[in-house]
Amino acid sequence: MGRWEPDARGRMIRSALELFAERGFEQTTAGDIAKNAGVTERTFFRHFTDKREVLFDGSATMQRTACDAILAAPVDLSPLDAALAGMVAAGGLLADRRDHAVRRSGIIAANPSLHERELLKLAAMTDTTAEALGKRGVTEPAAGLAAHMAVTVFHVAFTRWVSTEEPPGLTTCIAEAAAALRALK
Amino acid sequence: MGRWEPDARGRMIRSALELFAERGFEQTTAGDIAKNAGVTERTFFRHFTDKREVLFDGSATMQRTACDAILAAPVDLSPLDAALAGMVAAGGLLADRRDHAVRRSGIIAANPSLHERELLKLAAMTDTTAEALGKRGVTEPAAGLAAHMAVTVFHVAFTRWVSTEEPPGLTTCIAEAAAALRALK
Repeated sequence: MGRWEPDARGRMIRSALELFAERGFEQTTAGDIAKNAGVTERTFFRHFTDKREVLFDGSATMQRTACDAILAAPVDLSPLDAALAGMVAAGGLLADRRDHAVRRSGIIAANPSLHERELLKLAAMTDTTAEALGKRGVTEPAAGLAAHMAVTVFHVAFTRWVSTEEPPGLTTCIAEAAAALRALK
Repeated sequence: MGRWEPDARGRMIRSALELFAERGFEQTTAGDIAKNAGVTERTFFRHFTDKREVLFDGSATMQRTACDAILAAPVDLSPLDAALAGMVAAGGLLADRRDHAVRRSGIIAANPSLHERELLKLAAMTDTTAEALGKRGVTEPAAGLAAHMAVTVFHVAFTRWVSTEEPPGLTTCIAEAAAALRALK
């Protein structure tokens, strides 16, 4: 392991965000990111399939975290509340990284292909959530609907959190979006 | 206008579905579709940006139809009911084309790039719906949430309609998904 190996992954992620913001996503290559992070292109591709994936590094962990929280939620929680507990747990991973999240959102908003990938990840989060609810004995269509609702709440809360000045914490944004959802008639 | 010009668009759409189902999406070119439909490749590209778009031909019309129905809905309808009225109107365009919808869904499910495009179109439908609610005076976050809910109901209802044997009509599927959504606690 070379001298620079520790946290190579974190350095690549930070380098990518820096370069995407400075030069634009299309104008940045995987080689540029590797160089900026002080690793070889080969190391880059050991960690990431392509340069898009650098921006979605946390999504598998977020899905696992949501799933674990849903399975661990009290048995008497309703499907929607259990799904929301998953979203709060997943959101907890981002809580102290708002600056990163804001920069990342700006880059994604500027690139349709990244927007597509973001939607795919949200769809994967919905599927994971529905499966976790299924393991709690929730049947369809309730499982799928509660999963969609919870991920929508997360999405709306996250958008507010990264796009408004001095927002409350992400957990509060989630709670308020969930309350607004329930108030819909 | 050549002899075969009338309904060239419809013939290209049917040819594309036929070829995608037979040979696979990746193995079919725009040229193959044009030839099968009896038009030139140039005609194909006058109608469609690429071969993916053939499968999403109706989505702009569906969005317009949903938007018009939302604006025309009785003023005393709640945001969610107004949004759902839009979904029912959009679904009405598909009602007598279930065979087509079933075949199309099979092709989309088999191709990740088509799945991405489908998600983008659903996101566009959500944005259109939220804007239409905005014109009715609904503010955020209610407009965005009601739009997300309504499009989710549409998505869940549509999936049931194309993936189960002898389902009720799409309008009934939408009504039942909406009822299941409201029953979530």
